[in-house]
Amino acid sequence: MSSLSTPDIITATEADLAAFDALFAHSSAIGTTANGGLHRLAASAEDGAMRDAFCAWLGERGFEVRVDAVGNVFGLVTFNPSAPYVLCGSHLDSQPNAGRFDGTYGVLAGAVAVASVTRQLRERGETPAFNLAVVNWTNEEGARFQPSLIGSSTFMGSLSVAEACSSRDAAGITLGDALAQIGYRGEAMLDVPVAAYLELHVEQGSQLENQGLAIGVVRHTWAALKWRVRFDGEQNHTGPAPMAVRRDALLAAAHAIVAVKAEAELHGLHMHSSVGRLEVEPNSPNVVPALARLLVEFRSPSTPLLAAAGERFRATLADIAARTGTTFEIEHAQLREPSHLHHGLSELAHATCAELALPCGDSVTVAGHDAISLSRRYPTSLLFVPSQGGLSHNEAEFTATADLHRGVRLLTALLYRACCQPGRYLGGATS
Amino acid sequence: MSSLSTPDIITATEADLAAFDALFAHSSAIGTTANGGLHRLAASAEDGAMRDAFCAWLGERGFEVRVDAVGNVFGLVTFNPSAPYVLCGSHLDSQPNAGRFDGTYGVLAGAVAVASVTRQLRERGETPAFNLAVVNWTNEEGARFQPSLIGSSTFMGSLSVAEACSSRDAAGITLGDALAQIGYRGEAMLDVPVAAYLELHVEQGSQLENQGLAIGVVRHTWAALKWRVRFDGEQNHTGPAPMAVRRDALLAAAHAIVAVKAEAELHGLHMHSSVGRLEVEPNSPNVVPALARLLVEFRSPSTPLLAAAGERFRATLADIAARTGTTFEIEHAQLREPSHLHHGLSELAHATCAELALPCGDSVTVAGHDAISLSRRYPTSLLFVPSQGGLSHNEAEFTATADLHRGVRLLTALLYRACCQPGRYLGGATS
Repeated sequence: MSSLSTPDIITATEADLAAFDALFAHSSAIGTTANGGLHRLAASAEDGAMRDAFCAWLGERGFEVRVDAVGNVFGLVTFNPSAPYVLCGSHLDSQPNAGRFDGTYGVLAGAVAVASVTRQLRERGETPAFNLAVVNWTNEEGARFQPSLIGSSTFMGSLSVAEACSSRDAAGITLGDALAQIGYRGEAMLDVPVAAYLELHVEQGSQLENQGLAIGVVRHTWAALKWRVRFDGEQNHTGPAPMAVRRDALLAAAHAIVAVKAEAELHGLHMHSSVGRLEVEPNSPNVVPALARLLVEFRSPSTPLLAAAGERFRATLADIAARTGTTFEIEHAQLREPSHLHHGLSELAHATCAELALPCGDSVTVAGHDAISLSRRYPTSLLFVPSQGGLSHNEAEFTATADLHRGVRLLTALLYRACCQPGRYLGGATS
Repeated sequence: MSSLSTPDIITATEADLAAFDALFAHSSAIGTTANGGLHRLAASAEDGAMRDAFCAWLGERGFEVRVDAVGNVFGLVTFNPSAPYVLCGSHLDSQPNAGRFDGTYGVLAGAVAVASVTRQLRERGETPAFNLAVVNWTNEEGARFQPSLIGSSTFMGSLSVAEACSSRDAAGITLGDALAQIGYRGEAMLDVPVAAYLELHVEQGSQLENQGLAIGVVRHTWAALKWRVRFDGEQNHTGPAPMAVRRDALLAAAHAIVAVKAEAELHGLHMHSSVGRLEVEPNSPNVVPALARLLVEFRSPSTPLLAAAGERFRATLADIAARTGTTFEIEHAQLREPSHLHHGLSELAHATCAELALPCGDSVTVAGHDAISLSRRYPTSLLFVPSQGGLSHNEAEFTATADLHRGVRLLTALLYRACCQPGRYLGGATS
């Protein structure tokens, strides 16, 4: 489809990169922490302010801004109303006291890349096969509301709008009410037909840095087993109550946390595990805890290995409960299957990196990403830029500006290819 | 001092016991939980309502009501302005979702007993050697504000008013502000000269029930070693971060909680231990915890045994920190020495029980009580009535009304003896 008089590639200009820098700096100033990180929980006032800034930026550049029933924000550029969209994006929410790059980078890079491709296509007089859009998915982090990936899961239909909006934070506020509070609860889900989904993200690992690569093309993801486990004991006085009669829910939870780590250690590099959240009741100095609720996760490239670990851990929980006089319940269990990113898009990403002289390699992601939700049905590409020291969900999370720019240039070129040359990754004729 | 025409003993009448029942029922309705327990944290609105009811009751019966700078409420009956007071009481605050009896029983029994003795002395025309008073000590529980025993410790001078009032709850509210909010922050500490202190309390153990006793005369207390321990790790992503680089503060805390129990098990019945409170930051599902803070306590009748356990546990903490890549700090350490209750008062309690036909025995307390604060300087008696099943700090905490009445009768008789016949326990001539 490209005319013979124009080059076969489009990428971000210096002006585009400067626009990205300004937009990213603006983002870093909304929800800033004392140590230069970001605290911008989903549907908080800070998230609202960031959404406002994002929508204003899109509006000024002629995007059609739409908000769906779970607060996902789309910035659409429609060349042909009957064509589907090449969508790109990520999330603007953060973990508590976390970094400036996670999620935000993919949304802002996506906005700049879509604007750049749109402008350059119009300058060339070229009409793409597919439309373009950028998206900010709601509550990717799962920090304030559970589960994570709420926005993209609801878009994909694996979570209902009612389930999503009724999720409550620690203060009992529902996601629906929190979104309404900041003015981002739309009326319905949008029927945005998707041709492909591209997500640019910081690596949150150190492979790229260690190998001197600019870009990681994610080929597949790890599976994850997530359980919410509850121990019930008996509230009692920590002083006179004889040790033999105590039923201490926190002691049971402590044994479980130690056991989670021990299970992971059986599998070396093939398993990651954690307990990131623990709630204790009544959590009072002189009271034997009556209840402990912990979020356990095991991650592995192998689903059978996770299933076996889960069965073994269930038996361990029963043993702990018996030894501590408590009872346990697995209140919620979720198995996220591993997924494979789109082969054609991955190959196209490698080829485009080569053309742009960006050293790249294949990557794996252990973390969840909105791209994993989308990959269940649509051709999806997930692309990484380096994270200094692999540090993530931390105020000190860092990626150098030059690395951010390399990612924006790749995303711009890949968006161009994805909307103008679908044959290059969907298996049809190349343009 | 008693006249020959009147009996040598005074105890609560049926009308007094009915007044106690009414007052206790009133208390049980202020801060009631769904399961029939009590949730009345120090200086909360519920505590304020209970204090109002208590002060109204005292005022109607002619007590002089005084509130000191940390909210301790005294109800004074002054026969001779130059004489000291025989004080009795306990605390009206509760643990979260706890029982109706702990503390409250001692205050309300004390009020009824003082009123009964006062009325009967006036009916006899008898003037006691000492005055009488009932007291409600602020924040005995240490649930909302740390440390426990704030009111009685400040009265005794072992805690300053400034330290007490600046203690903050989990929401950052100071005790001083919380007391002002409910109208119970007085201007200064009161100089109430104390001749003796009597505290009636539920046992929170099962010795009396097991032995068929109505009254336990506490002879001595266990020592307690209380540490606030903090582990610092590094916030990171629970997915991609390699297990080997993680510095998980919650994992360290879990090992510590297991180790606290293991330390206690070395000493059989000579040590109780617990971790009642654990705080985790950021406590978010996909984040390796950066900080964990736990309240550790060891209790034992032997101070040297506690000291040795403390030293060993310090080494254990260092080992855990090294193994988990975390650092630890003992942010606060408190050793509460064991104390011995007053021999003369204990003997008098036994003799009085015999006269009233109340089966009694000697007891030990593992828990802290305001009586322990007072016993450091004043002749102090701590008296127990049975706790069903020993259950305490629990909504199901229970003592039968007949057992409560036996305690009120003993306290009334003992207050009479303590104010009219000081020679019987202070070593002088008997009256």
